[in-house]
Amino acid sequence: MGTKIIIPNMVTLSNLLLGIISLNYTMNEQYTVAAISILLAMMMDGMDGKIARKLDVASNFGKQLDSLCDLVSFGVAPALLVYGSSLQAIGPSGLIIALIFALCGAIRLARFNVLDINDHFIGVPITFAGSLLALAVLIASRLPLSVLFFSVFTLLLAYLMVSNLKVPKY
Amino acid sequence: MGTKIIIPNMVTLSNLLLGIISLNYTMNEQYTVAAISILLAMMMDGMDGKIARKLDVASNFGKQLDSLCDLVSFGVAPALLVYGSSLQAIGPSGLIIALIFALCGAIRLARFNVLDINDHFIGVPITFAGSLLALAVLIASRLPLSVLFFSVFTLLLAYLMVSNLKVPKY
Repeated sequence: MGTKIIIPNMVTLSNLLLGIISLNYTMNEQYTVAAISILLAMMMDGMDGKIARKLDVASNFGKQLDSLCDLVSFGVAPALLVYGSSLQAIGPSGLIIALIFALCGAIRLARFNVLDINDHFIGVPITFAGSLLALAVLIASRLPLSVLFFSVFTLLLAYLMVSNLKVPKY
Repeated sequence: MGTKIIIPNMVTLSNLLLGIISLNYTMNEQYTVAAISILLAMMMDGMDGKIARKLDVASNFGKQLDSLCDLVSFGVAPALLVYGSSLQAIGPSGLIIALIFALCGAIRLARFNVLDINDHFIGVPITFAGSLLALAVLIASRLPLSVLFFSVFTLLLAYLMVSNLKVPKY
């Protein structure tokens, strides 16, 4: 182990960094860059586990860190991104929709950590849901996507995260 | 157990809600309300565990959910609050300081979940560090606190979270 264990955890922390940077871009109303930051975080998130297993330093600490970072990058950051770029047009209901997405993401992650099933997922992973939301915001910078679309899409993804849908691992 | 288990988890989720609401206030440059939201989240955070133990429904799910919500409410929300209200005056270095605070918070939480020590804490708890930062921002709305003060204070709290300081549980 030794210093090798630091490498995958650095990748995980860069996922968190990108999530916070996305939030900061959302604050500055730079929604396209905010969406791209989330998609970059998704790439980091796909790498950390693989690196850890390859270096044979997969740890419980790494798993815990990973799900903490995931809530920020794929729960909170996309929720505030979709609220800032679209849902705030409908006022408090828009904020409630964004909050529901983040809450369902937190429930999904806590449930996943407790269930500890290894061959499939129960409910759509938060990484997938958050990245899809970011992708939709990115598409909306080119194509007109209505607030109604974003409301329904956000709620649907929130539901799918806490649903009992069996999702195969790839 | 039954439906009683829902009650403490609802309190935990309200902690997350307040964290996201704080981020939203920070986005709107309403720093005082953003700071108050974090302090309210702190109260919720003090209650959930007690309620769970009193109702005898303390669960691993609840513990996981709690630390996920803590990273948002006491790591990311205070970091962006202190950046928005003060540190952004010094540009990218200010953002880096805020990011270090959130990263150390994530490491603190992941380490705490893995160590699972029950009679004391190793390192200052993120709830305490995040609330102190929010309190400082609140005070700064009345008293002039310099960017230098916030830079040093934020880095000090970040360090204390990942330090090996033994903190008694109260």
